[in-house]
Amino acid sequence: MHGETAPPPTGPFADPALYTEITQFYAWHMALMDEGEPDAWADAYTEDAVFEEPGRTNVLRGREAIRASITKRTAELAAAGTVMRHWMSNLAVTPQPDGTLRATYYSLAMRAPRGERPDIFAHVVCRDALVREGERWLIRHRHVGIDALEK
Amino acid sequence: MHGETAPPPTGPFADPALYTEITQFYAWHMALMDEGEPDAWADAYTEDAVFEEPGRTNVLRGREAIRASITKRTAELAAAGTVMRHWMSNLAVTPQPDGTLRATYYSLAMRAPRGERPDIFAHVVCRDALVREGERWLIRHRHVGIDALEK
Amino acid sequence: MHGETAPPPTGPFADPALYTEITQFYAWHMALMDEGEPDAWADAYTEDAVFEEPGRTNVLRGREAIRASITKRTAELAAAGTVMRHWMSNLAVTPQPDGTLRATYYSLAMRAPRGERPDIFAHVVCRDALVREGERWLIRHRHVGIDALEK
Repeated sequence: MHGETAPPPTGPFADPALYTEITQFYAWHMALMDEGEPDAWADAYTEDAVFEEPGRTNVLRGREAIRASITKRTAELAAAGTVMRHWMSNLAVTPQPDGTLRATYYSLAMRAPRGERPDIFAHVVCRDALVREGERWLIRHRHVGIDALEK
Repeated sequence: MHGETAPPPTGPFADPALYTEITQFYAWHMALMDEGEPDAWADAYTEDAVFEEPGRTNVLRGREAIRASITKRTAELAAAGTVMRHWMSNLAVTPQPDGTLRATYYSLAMRAPRGERPDIFAHVVCRDALVREGERWLIRHRHVGIDALEK
Repeated sequence: MHGETAPPPTGPFADPALYTEITQFYAWHMALMDEGEPDAWADAYTEDAVFEEPGRTNVLRGREAIRASITKRTAELAAAGTVMRHWMSNLAVTPQPDGTLRATYYSLAMRAPRGERPDIFAHVVCRDALVREGERWLIRHRHVGIDALEK
């Protein structure tokens, strides 16, 4: 695994323009969920997008299935008076030969009921495939790997 | 909220130079508070800055009022032997037509008493207005929206 | 500490290319530890690297000592079925006159046992010296300052 014959330890990193664009894309997109805008959140997926979160939900196929799921979840949180804040860290962005991107990052859902102590609801590793459509990036595939989840 | 006639979902993102500069500005500024340098922290506000944190403190008007408040808070933490570490995530930077910036980000205060278990003291959403003064960015307005706070 | 004669509050910030490169370096490097690849993780240190974590371990001198330590730790975590995720925030990158870099950042280790509630195992402030070797950055010195650690 080491020594002079080892392969270089890193692939090429994303250039500054791409890296900061994707960083901002996620800040924007997570805010939509956290601020209770499920329609705009779902619109950032391609029409044929696939959303996988093994162990928690069935695979969602297509933007409208994703929209229905997030709309239901947003309503449940609002009814419970719960604020969720989705954090991210350790973003890796890897351009693919076909022009798509792979993006991997850690995310945690901070649950913040008004007036109570904040806590960490879940920690996940997200693996997205992003595609360019005109001026926008859209999510074509998301795999949410759950590390831990409060029962 | 969706479909071909929908507005583009994102405003223009900050360019790489601006985005990484503001990211580093906050890393620098939060370190001042966390390392117990309240004067330097207060100096990053404009003379007429306004600091709002509804539900926790009265509105602070002016750099010297902000300085007095942070100086008191820093002394209290030092007396208690408490280390605070202010994290940030999901930074959005939006240049305004008048040359100022809006910056929005999540922040959490990690409380780390020496030798004990770390915990999350508070989770907030910060909304800042930044202005350029020579070579520096200064905070002209800060609104700290408290999601949750340990009692 | 303030007033017209005060020195500028910030040193020069790293340029966008360097800042995003180092950000991605850490995302890559932390993933190696979290995914259980201790050899590749150790290979990112120089042969004469020094690793200090006062209060927790003795000083480790040299890449092979660092490799032995991380290999043991990785095996212990695997045996316990524990997933660790190392987050980072507040990265400051400061180029030095000799071409090396100083990088300072907050890191927390999120402990995520499968199927249980995630929690924060430790919070630290890392101070690294990085050196360029061909196409790569390598860690020559790491100082891990422990703020808090669950007993």
